[in-house]
Amino acid sequence: MTVTVEHKRPQITPEDQMEKETFSKPRTRKARGGSRRRGSVERKPDATLKVIPLGGLDAIGKNMTAFECGDDMILVDAGLMFPDDDHPGIDLILPDYTYVLENEHKLRGIIITHGHEDHTGSLPYLMKDLSRKVPIYATKMTLGLVEGKFNEHRVKARLAEVKAGDEIKLGSFVVDFFAVNHSIPGALGVFLQSPAGNVLHTGDFKLDQSPIDGVHTDFGALARFGKMGVDLMMSDSTNAMNPNFTPSEAEVGRALRPIIENAKGRVIIASFASHIHRLQQIADAAVACGRKVVVTGRSMVQNTDIARRLGYLKIQDVDLIDAYDLKDMPADKVVIMCTGSQGEPLSALARIANGEHRTIQIDEGDTVIISATPVPGNEKAVTRVVNSLAKIGCDVYDKRRAMVHVSGHAGAEELKLVLSIVQPKNFMPVHGEATHLRAHAKLAEATGVPARNIFLCENGDTLELTQDGVRFGEPVESGIVYVDGLSVGDTSKDVLDERQTLGGAGVALICAAVDLRKKQIMGHVRVEMRGITGGDVSDLRREATDTVKGTLRRALEKGTKGRDLEKTCRDSLLSLLWERTKQRPMVVSSIIEL
Amino acid sequence: MTVTVEHKRPQITPEDQMEKETFSKPRTRKARGGSRRRGSVERKPDATLKVIPLGGLDAIGKNMTAFECGDDMILVDAGLMFPDDDHPGIDLILPDYTYVLENEHKLRGIIITHGHEDHTGSLPYLMKDLSRKVPIYATKMTLGLVEGKFNEHRVKARLAEVKAGDEIKLGSFVVDFFAVNHSIPGALGVFLQSPAGNVLHTGDFKLDQSPIDGVHTDFGALARFGKMGVDLMMSDSTNAMNPNFTPSEAEVGRALRPIIENAKGRVIIASFASHIHRLQQIADAAVACGRKVVVTGRSMVQNTDIARRLGYLKIQDVDLIDAYDLKDMPADKVVIMCTGSQGEPLSALARIANGEHRTIQIDEGDTVIISATPVPGNEKAVTRVVNSLAKIGCDVYDKRRAMVHVSGHAGAEELKLVLSIVQPKNFMPVHGEATHLRAHAKLAEATGVPARNIFLCENGDTLELTQDGVRFGEPVESGIVYVDGLSVGDTSKDVLDERQTLGGAGVALICAAVDLRKKQIMGHVRVEMRGITGGDVSDLRREATDTVKGTLRRALEKGTKGRDLEKTCRDSLLSLLWERTKQRPMVVSSIIEL
Repeated sequence: MTVTVEHKRPQITPEDQMEKETFSKPRTRKARGGSRRRGSVERKPDATLKVIPLGGLDAIGKNMTAFECGDDMILVDAGLMFPDDDHPGIDLILPDYTYVLENEHKLRGIIITHGHEDHTGSLPYLMKDLSRKVPIYATKMTLGLVEGKFNEHRVKARLAEVKAGDEIKLGSFVVDFFAVNHSIPGALGVFLQSPAGNVLHTGDFKLDQSPIDGVHTDFGALARFGKMGVDLMMSDSTNAMNPNFTPSEAEVGRALRPIIENAKGRVIIASFASHIHRLQQIADAAVACGRKVVVTGRSMVQNTDIARRLGYLKIQDVDLIDAYDLKDMPADKVVIMCTGSQGEPLSALARIANGEHRTIQIDEGDTVIISATPVPGNEKAVTRVVNSLAKIGCDVYDKRRAMVHVSGHAGAEELKLVLSIVQPKNFMPVHGEATHLRAHAKLAEATGVPARNIFLCENGDTLELTQDGVRFGEPVESGIVYVDGLSVGDTSKDVLDERQTLGGAGVALICAAVDLRKKQIMGHVRVEMRGITGGDVSDLRREATDTVKGTLRRALEKGTKGRDLEKTCRDSLLSLLWERTKQRPMVVSSIIEL
Repeated sequence: MTVTVEHKRPQITPEDQMEKETFSKPRTRKARGGSRRRGSVERKPDATLKVIPLGGLDAIGKNMTAFECGDDMILVDAGLMFPDDDHPGIDLILPDYTYVLENEHKLRGIIITHGHEDHTGSLPYLMKDLSRKVPIYATKMTLGLVEGKFNEHRVKARLAEVKAGDEIKLGSFVVDFFAVNHSIPGALGVFLQSPAGNVLHTGDFKLDQSPIDGVHTDFGALARFGKMGVDLMMSDSTNAMNPNFTPSEAEVGRALRPIIENAKGRVIIASFASHIHRLQQIADAAVACGRKVVVTGRSMVQNTDIARRLGYLKIQDVDLIDAYDLKDMPADKVVIMCTGSQGEPLSALARIANGEHRTIQIDEGDTVIISATPVPGNEKAVTRVVNSLAKIGCDVYDKRRAMVHVSGHAGAEELKLVLSIVQPKNFMPVHGEATHLRAHAKLAEATGVPARNIFLCENGDTLELTQDGVRFGEPVESGIVYVDGLSVGDTSKDVLDERQTLGGAGVALICAAVDLRKKQIMGHVRVEMRGITGGDVSDLRREATDTVKGTLRRALEKGTKGRDLEKTCRDSLLSLLWERTKQRPMVVSSIIEL
């Protein structure tokens, strides 16, 4: 993973800025499955389609792919990733989209397949960096969530609603949207036709045969596009290593019902705030058991509002109560839906577990359901919350105890089924770490895609699709960009390394003033230590001060000055600290020459 | 979790030091199962047995329990825990055993149930803190591993070998050892008879019906002790939440064989270095497939040496080759057993994966088996190594893909079975986090132990066992002690908090010299920043220097001095940094008054 420190601004000429945007109104396919046409875009023998993944191939996160053909470019998804312990102090991680900015004049539109943050999260940053309002195409649900983020960031954008079955023209591209089933409503796959060939991008999907909202992954569309000819297929690798079919979301409802029915006290259910199908099932089960629903946690409140307003989530007003009214309700008459399924320390669930929630209390005998699975890296945080709940005496259910969570991504058998329907000429597994991509490649091979036509790419690689097939082209600038407080892209690997050292072993600071002519130390020599341990710390500090003083005096005698003087002091303190603590803290030496 | 900063030294009087140690030779039970005696210890109506868990009840780690009756105390296990991200820079975590040191004069012996570090790891520290060589009782295998650690620490100790079936007398205690089956050979459970009553401690165990070394958990002994009367049972809660029987270790052998048989290149298997049964199965499968065995990784080499020497691991010399001789071997003729199953960055597997291993290389088509499960918190590290291997093109097997690992701890059904055999009067789940202990308590209740006789304890709690039953007594000093470089117990929560701040947001340092009488700044004002980000860092530094200079000048005018002067400067820099970066780094201000 390369770290891009400089976040280059593209040079946009006034002409580019004046360029007329090709904003096409979507038209809905009338004769679904009826027509047998070979595509809406005329093939050009010398055309090349570049497929450039800018994110999503090194991790499950920050998905973004550019498709470029001649003077036209479209972007599919603009996601972010949440940092782990390797990125101390970092708030968010974005894909480096320098290439998009450098080619902004070509950019005809941004397609967002669904509303998860690993597909939408870098949009506000990208929109700020673009010099014009490139239109964003997505479903009503996705746009609702994106709009919320834009409002927080005070970003204005052009949002264009599309739905499954729509076809739009973006420059020389024709884009068809088809329904896929995922752990959020309004998820789409896209079929891109270009003068150089056709690409099918599944988006994130599973093949739920009994979906909560009745929206199936559109097998008919997959078959139709397959028949039209898919030169390159890109498909979701998240669960490529899971040998089975992912269970239906409906199974979760079946598991939740008896738990809520048999619960004696409060029922508190933590889930992903964007998992509207899950929230629908929780609400349905609550109402069926004669309980009212309470929603708590900022993103949960926000998303249920949006989803109810847009008609994706159906909870009647009479079944919802405000958290402030909980005190008037018997404990066994409520189900509390909350955030915190990842153990986030400031989330509603963590605050409830620690007795720090303003309106919701928890008692022995209450039931807590973790209706989610920990994202890798969050296991310990989740365990911490569960242990707090266990100490209170709550009955905690998680995935291990009952099927209170299922994945939103297709398992190996589903992936093979879709590959078999589409029968792509070339295949590129996406949305996964190296190990997932490789497993998905094996699946593609098993369904008959020749190994030489399967492309294991890294972020920044370019695949070039021409009438002669697919091959690797020149890689483009890529990497990751840190959002760190107010700063975007300024945090370098060096800064992170400094934080790792500081966080692991602490810091020692030397401050002294010297008169170089008199070869004298002026005033006190100060050594300060933070995050350093080693016997009695004040003893250690005294010894450190003496050591530095001695070194400084000898160095002054020899006529050492400037950086050399500072380095000599730093080195002597470092050796002392290593000897006394067997650790290597950071040592910073400031010597003022009077 | 409380953090004990001061690691109190007990006051040992010369008399205590001269006290004769009661070192009893074990005698092996002759008439196993035959005798029907009601115990070897005479009950005293006024005797009280205190059971004091000092570790192991807040986490899977640092197990240690003190048993105290009158003037006699014995300790069962002395383990450590490995730190996670909540403990930046910490090397190891020990239980706070102040109570043991304060009662050193009573300590008759230390019993180690088996050789895992969460049961043995604090022994070297404890031995250094004790003023005399308290004898350590354990099996040959356990003592072999303990001895290795003692040699590293240059600690001398009295090691007393016992084996399953032995009975020893320690003060007024009589201790019977019985065989249990676990993921390391030579694991024991203990049955303690005291004048106040009997305690059965299972140690870590599972009920493997086809154990690799033929050693079963001794059902006969459990039944016999049950019949003699178990007033309190303490049992391993690790897998209390797993509803099933843990599969037999033999299943792993069955899974490994076809993978090795079908592998085309090298086979590299990472496992726990102490899992001798696993290593035996790997070696057996390798030899059966006509491959030689290579052992690499410091602890793996060390443990296989000890286990072969003591007869626990049977690999013939002819089947072992040195890593240096690998270059002369065809890749498909070797199986490499290595450390690194937890993704440790410096382990053999990580070095192999990164091409940094001195003697072992890895190529596309080689097979890697992760014959372990990630300890919670290590998931990301393991994933990182697996992804590196996937990028090389290795075929990686883990638990999800084949049964290449099984747990060494009993599942819920096994736990209930043992509870049913022993039929204890009182029960205390041990070896687990709050959620495991609670789950185990429910299992005990299900087998008929009355809820009021089940004790969910925390570290430092005291259970008092008398002829009237069990009740909570006064808690003792407990907590955790950090090993941090050379320092043991000096690292405070404050130091860790400092490291968290430093690691998350960096540090800024102010260094200046002033003349208070002249109200003047002397020489340059220096501001240094480390781990801080925010636009152009040199711009920020310049602005910070100007801000501090201005503040300092105004404060001098007002006659501010000393700590107030430093605080004023610190505050002004903190506000500037918050404004510019929206982060709160640590700011240290040193102002030299001339």
